[in-house]
Amino acid sequence: MKGGGKRFNAAEDLMKAIWLENNMLSFRQDVPPPTPSEIEALVRVRMAGICGTDLELIKGYYRYCGIPGHEFVGDIIEAPQQPQRIGERVVGDINVSCGTCSSCSLGQPMHCETRKILGIKGHHGVLAEYVCLPLKNLISVPDSVSDDAAVFVEPLAAALEIQSQIEIQPQHQVLVVGAGRLGQLIAQTLAVTECHLQVVARYQKQKQLLTAHNITWIDETSVTKRRYDVVVEATGSPSGFAVAHRAVRPRGIIVLKSTYQSEVSINLSSLVVDEVTLMGSRCGSLRPALDLIERGIIDPVDLIEKCYLLKQAPTAFEHAARPGVLKILVKVVD
Amino acid sequence: MKGGGKRFNAAEDLMKAIWLENNMLSFRQDVPPPTPSEIEALVRVRMAGICGTDLELIKGYYRYCGIPGHEFVGDIIEAPQQPQRIGERVVGDINVSCGTCSSCSLGQPMHCETRKILGIKGHHGVLAEYVCLPLKNLISVPDSVSDDAAVFVEPLAAALEIQSQIEIQPQHQVLVVGAGRLGQLIAQTLAVTECHLQVVARYQKQKQLLTAHNITWIDETSVTKRRYDVVVEATGSPSGFAVAHRAVRPRGIIVLKSTYQSEVSINLSSLVVDEVTLMGSRCGSLRPALDLIERGIIDPVDLIEKCYLLKQAPTAFEHAARPGVLKILVKVVD
Repeated sequence: MKGGGKRFNAAEDLMKAIWLENNMLSFRQDVPPPTPSEIEALVRVRMAGICGTDLELIKGYYRYCGIPGHEFVGDIIEAPQQPQRIGERVVGDINVSCGTCSSCSLGQPMHCETRKILGIKGHHGVLAEYVCLPLKNLISVPDSVSDDAAVFVEPLAAALEIQSQIEIQPQHQVLVVGAGRLGQLIAQTLAVTECHLQVVARYQKQKQLLTAHNITWIDETSVTKRRYDVVVEATGSPSGFAVAHRAVRPRGIIVLKSTYQSEVSINLSSLVVDEVTLMGSRCGSLRPALDLIERGIIDPVDLIEKCYLLKQAPTAFEHAARPGVLKILVKVVD
Repeated sequence: MKGGGKRFNAAEDLMKAIWLENNMLSFRQDVPPPTPSEIEALVRVRMAGICGTDLELIKGYYRYCGIPGHEFVGDIIEAPQQPQRIGERVVGDINVSCGTCSSCSLGQPMHCETRKILGIKGHHGVLAEYVCLPLKNLISVPDSVSDDAAVFVEPLAAALEIQSQIEIQPQHQVLVVGAGRLGQLIAQTLAVTECHLQVVARYQKQKQLLTAHNITWIDETSVTKRRYDVVVEATGSPSGFAVAHRAVRPRGIIVLKSTYQSEVSINLSSLVVDEVTLMGSRCGSLRPALDLIERGIIDPVDLIEKCYLLKQAPTAFEHAARPGVLKILVKVVD
């Protein structure tokens, strides 16, 4: 395999991968590579990103044993059903859907009742030399988009999902609570709408990056109560939710963009009296995100703090878990 | 005043009213009647309804001292600015708004930042011979609509508010959790949309009334998980919310239609992962509700369990508080 041209042979080769088991990460060189089914492709991973969900996996937030990681760019090296796609550089949708359940029938494969999720649930992830995904999940990355940028397509799609759920208009007062990895991408996508945007930021680096993108940041204490038409909660913490709840105006919308480690106690009556809407928001479509990057409207690469090698991934995770750290990447194969 | 034709004179007359103080209701005959301001009308109350919010007021859920009650039908007997309206039989919007704050400017007077609320906050209610309300809050009731029906206009408007917030379509699977006073009205308004409607009912009387209106009721144990496009939570209890949360499909909507006595602990992550929307819903516009009654599309009078006299109102409240009881009315002035 390392020779590049040789067809991959699972019987001959074992691969390098990061393995998560019992809340521990380890670098292994003896992992059997996956074998693509008829509808899948085998992808050689170039680069992977670490996101908050990966960090929560390690904390045991989800039950998962196997290869973590779901943000990636790589090359198709096997594709039984569509061999013409071999050689394509691709990014991929993380939801592996059944195609037949009620959600799939409604055109919502990301909510498939029996879905597997890349590196999160029932499907090995991308912190490995090779990964399998259905061909329908993979979209081609134009040459003009670097690996460093392409690895952001998945989280950028999640940020854009907000705008597929609600229409943000230029006159809207919008607040993003949290200026971390995802908060920064959300802020950049919202800035495109030319709405009145403010971002609650805590760390100097976050503030500098927002300023560099001409986005207004404020401290938590400067949030005006009951002011904002739309508030995006991107901290995943009960205190972040409390800020969002105070900030939203009557009949406004709070978009929940992060998962929470435990249940959150909420004053539902105030939601009723103020007719506030809480809207959960998860993954999005990759193509609009890739388009924004290709057209240069969003350039996410200045979020990158450091890029590690695959064997250093456990250290990379420790780095990513530090407060205020932005994007940590893992370079898998050149 | 009792003579009918004589102009009301606050200096001469005291009125009968129900008084709420320190969580206790009392019938009093020595209450000074209100005096209308330039923009208000003085209304002689014919009939009042008791709703869940009134019962919560007594429990001390809101801080309130004064005359309770906000569902009513009555006659305008004074109207300094529009004397031509004297003699009109009217129902009224319960929110007394300032007209100048940001919510009022947005065309949302019901969310006025400094609003008073009839019989709930800063404004004496309708369990009295006389009440004042701004003329703009009062709409005329056609002769064809009885007092018994007109007294339902306000809660029916609250039920209809759901349809001003989301469009219910015939193909939608809709569940109402709770078949009490408000749940019945919600169910009747939803049935008009011809959606696939089911109502979780607990008491025999509730079930019979639903059946009489050709609405399907089910027991809580028969609720299919993750099935419904829209779930309306009309119990105001954490257990009712739990039923609604289980029932809603991914990307579905839970409408919160009741207030809750305390904070509710919620798995926000599941809202995020399933992209569920929680939508608070409160008061609605009176006119569409009155229209539905006038056109005979909704006939709420079979919800009435008993009608008490004003002096019996404390007993009426006790009756209304019993589990499974539907609408209790109070007849104030013939």
